[in-house]
Parts: sequence; C-alpha cells; structure tokens
Amino acid sequence: MTLKFPILPDPKNPRLTRPVSGADHTGAPVEIPVVEERPLTIYLNRQEIVTAMTIGDYPEYLALGFLRNQGMLRDDDVVTRVDFDEELETVVVRTERETSYEEKVQKKTRTSGCAVGTVFGDMMEGLEGLDLPQTEVRTSWLYALAHQINTIPSLYLEAGAIHGTVLCQGDTPLIYMEDVGRHNAVDKIAGFVFRHDIPVADKILYTTGRLTSEMVIKCALMGIPVLASRSGFTAWGVEIARQVGLTCIGRMRGKRFVCLSGEDRLLRDIDPASLPDEDRKHRRKSAQ
Amino acid sequence: MTLKFPILPDPKNPRLTRPVSGADHTGAPVEIPVVEERPLTIYLNRQEIVTAMTIGDYPEYLALGFLRNQGMLRDDDVVTRVDFDEELETVVVRTERETSYEEKVQKKTRTSGCAVGTVFGDMMEGLEGLDLPQTEVRTSWLYALAHQINTIPSLYLEAGAIHGTVLCQGDTPLIYMEDVGRHNAVDKIAGFVFRHDIPVADKILYTTGRLTSEMVIKCALMGIPVLASRSGFTAWGVEIARQVGLTCIGRMRGKRFVCLSGEDRLLRDIDPASLPDEDRKHRRKSAQ
Repeated sequence: MTLKFPILPDPKNPRLTRPVSGADHTGAPVEIPVVEERPLTIYLNRQEIVTAMTIGDYPEYLALGFLRNQGMLRDDDVVTRVDFDEELETVVVRTERETSYEEKVQKKTRTSGCAVGTVFGDMMEGLEGLDLPQTEVRTSWLYALAHQINTIPSLYLEAGAIHGTVLCQGDTPLIYMEDVGRHNAVDKIAGFVFRHDIPVADKILYTTGRLTSEMVIKCALMGIPVLASRSGFTAWGVEIARQVGLTCIGRMRGKRFVCLSGEDRLLRDIDPASLPDEDRKHRRKSAQ
Repeated sequence: MTLKFPILPDPKNPRLTRPVSGADHTGAPVEIPVVEERPLTIYLNRQEIVTAMTIGDYPEYLALGFLRNQGMLRDDDVVTRVDFDEELETVVVRTERETSYEEKVQKKTRTSGCAVGTVFGDMMEGLEGLDLPQTEVRTSWLYALAHQINTIPSLYLEAGAIHGTVLCQGDTPLIYMEDVGRHNAVDKIAGFVFRHDIPVADKILYTTGRLTSEMVIKCALMGIPVLASRSGFTAWGVEIARQVGLTCIGRMRGKRFVCLSGEDRLLRDIDPASLPDEDRKHRRKSAQ
C-alpha cells in the first residue's frame, strides 16, 4: 500500500460536526457547528479493553494506537485484523499471539490531562534505558509548522473545542489528526505509525495540548525525539523529557516559544526579530 | 465548622509550582514557574481505586469528589475518616458501610477530556429521572463572574497550563479550584460540596474546560443547574444538557457567549453593547 502524505483533517465530513441551534450574547438565534462525541469500545481479541469518547474518524488507528501506547500491543505483536463496526461502535484488534491482559486492566493510573485518565500498567514502564536519537531541530521548521498547522482547514477552525496532534518532518506536517480528547489524537498518530511502520527518528510531534508527564511519556515511547506545543508544561513532564533526552518546546505563540529540554539540539537558523507577531486571525484559541 | 468563603487559589504556595530553567525563542536563558504534577492514589476503605495525577492541593476533597462523581460514594454513605499521607501520596476514604466496588472498577469508560479518561460504572447512571431546578441566571452575573475569575490571582495567571473550576452563587465566586486535569478541579469542588453539605440549587459551575458529555454529566449529577465555560461544546454534551434541563453557556469571551441549552432560563438584564470587549491583558489563554 502506498501512503499519500499529508493526511489532513476533513472539516467538511458531515459525520464529525453537527449544526446546533441556540442564542448568542445579544439573544439573537444562532446555529453553530459543534463537534460530535461518540463512544467507541475497543477490544483486543476477546477482551473488552475500554470505551473511548471520540469524534469518530480513524477508529482503527485510534484502537491500535491506544493499545500500543498502553503497552498492550508490543513491537513484535503481529496484528492479523482490525474490524470496525460502525453500528455497534466497536473496534476489534486481533493479534497472532493472545495474552491475558487482565492484570494490566486492573492497574489504573488516572492521568492529568483534562479528563479523568487511565493508563493500564506502569506508565513509566519502558522509559528506563530509553535513548532517543539526538535529532537536531531547526527553529525555522518550528515557525513554519506552527503557521501551517494554524491555517490548514481543520475541525478546529470549523467548530473549535477540539485538540490536534501532528506528526511532522522538517518543516512539513505529514499526519494531522484531531479529536475531542488530546490523547485520542496522539493515539491515532501512534496507530498510524505502528500500522504502516513509519520511521520516527527524524520526526517532530506537535500537539495543541499541554506537555504533561503522560504526553511526554507517550511521545518518548513512540520514539519521537521532539515534542512541540502551543501550550505549557508541567514540572514532571519536563523532568521526564530531560531524563530520556526528548526535546521539549512549549508556549509556541507567534515568534515566541520556550525550550525547557534539549536546548542544545535546537539549531537557531532564523532570527525571531525578522518574524511578525502572531496574526490575531490565526491565533489559536484553545480546545481546553 | 464555620466555612469562610471565598476559597481562592494560592498561587504563592511553593508546593504547587517550581521554577524551571530553559531558553526562550531568542536563545536567552529564562526561568519560568511551572506547575507541579504528582501522583495521588485514592483508596476507598481497603480497595485501591485509582492513581490520579494532580497538582497536589486539597487531596481530601479530590478523593471524596472523585469517588462521589464516579458513583462510588452515595448520598447516604457516611464518611467516617479521610486520611492523607503526604509521604506515601495516598488518600484513604473510610465509610461506615463497606461494599465491594470490584465490579465498578472493572467497567471503564475512557472519556473525551484531554486525557485518557475513565469512568467507573455507567456514566449515564443516575441521569434518568433527574430533574434540575429551573434556576434563573442573570447575564450580568455571567459577565461579573468571568471578569473576576480572569483577574483573581491564580496558578493560571502565575504559571499557566492549568484548569480552573469555580462554584459560584449569583455574581460571586465561592470556591475556585485549580488542577492539571480539569476533572480534578471539578472533583475537588464536588468533594467540598459533599463534605460540607453545601446546597447547590442556586449555584453556577464555571469551568475553563470544554462542555463535553462527561463535564455535563458531572455537573448534572452534582445537582448544579447552570454550567458556564470560556470554551466550546460537544454535540453529545448539549444533548444531555437539554435532556436534564441543565443551562449551558459556552464560548464566554469578553461580551460574547453562546447559550445552547436553557435559553429560556437566562434573564438578559444587561445590554452587552454597554460592555467593553475583552481586555487583551485579561484574555485567558488556554490550559489545554
């Protein structure tokens, strides 16, 4: 199968938003596009694993990426089939080797994203001894990526209230996924990368979400050496990033950004003074 | 015990933020305050329930509110003790009646906030037959609340990358909680309300987060009749709000807002044309 990049949001897909009527601040009737939110139950072989609330696109990648990021699918697991049933709102991932994941399902960590969060197994598992490639990042790429991501037609620009995650190479966005949960968006990228065996040592992961411990861990476990965000950091996220050698750039707004991990891998090839301030029209409000 | 309102954020508490060094976009060294993120393991009697990632304040309220919002503590449960152990990073909630919650722990729903989310049991449980009080909301209160919440000293204004939830009455913020996860912030409010038996029929819940199904369900199950946010909606969130008669106001920025549920309970007592646009200084960027 030949993959055609970039893979971009499809804001005109009628399954993903719905016009909803209400009133605005003046009392005038309005009809605004609102993102959908649907349950999707993920099975691994015969085991029901989780029900995710998702916007509903790319259910197969979401399921694969979720299982991968939770350590329930290993590198050497061979996926034999992935079946999505739209009516039943289920995805079943089948692997050659069937193991009991009951123990993993027992151990839950509620993580700090915006929702109640769960990570099965030990979140930190796999980080020890992890050595990310010392990939250099040009600051001109960061600016080019942010500009493109903020202006490419997306559900965010159409309806707001959504998170985006983008797998990038150099100054080019390759795969741009959106979802109601920021972790879903990352998981879809992880599923895509796993399914199509995309090399990641030269990639940059851009997220609209904060750089919390869980986001940093996911990025590191995927093997992606650079994580960038419009949003801020948590102290533990920074600590883990430094431990595993992940370059972490946050608070990217207009010409501004802060690098709290991997500063020595930044190649400052553009003078920020030569850049305009963030255009108000393209200032991304938050998905929150 | 006499409660003294308002309960406000304590941005100067040294346990909640940490100065972290890095470099800015010009390459200049910077030191910025970054919010903490710590694990907190919640027990209900002898059962380990979950490990939450939290900023670390009000662990007792977080534990109580989490258990309450997951339906693991019922209205008629009598809490005999709540013990927080800072060193072990645990909270143990003890009740008179001990039940087995194993079945609840088995059933997980990953929810759509910004992180992987888990709800034990049936999220929709308890919504059927729920009839929220038809509390009227003055639009002047909404503006007054938003202005105060955006300007009261907070961890958000100090360090960013954090969510806030505020229990309000009329035009007055009563309890303002912050946390790395928006659901933690809501759970702290729920724990406070449960612990001190605060009446809620006349309250407004303000959140910086999106009005997703889970946020709407939590607010409704707490019995609070009005939910307001700077952020947007999901279609399912709006549907549930309409079903249970919850007034839902979103996209509150400056003089603007959108009401997608409960428009007939809004008392438009102020002309938005008389209000200034949102002051750029007080425009809240997102926690994401």
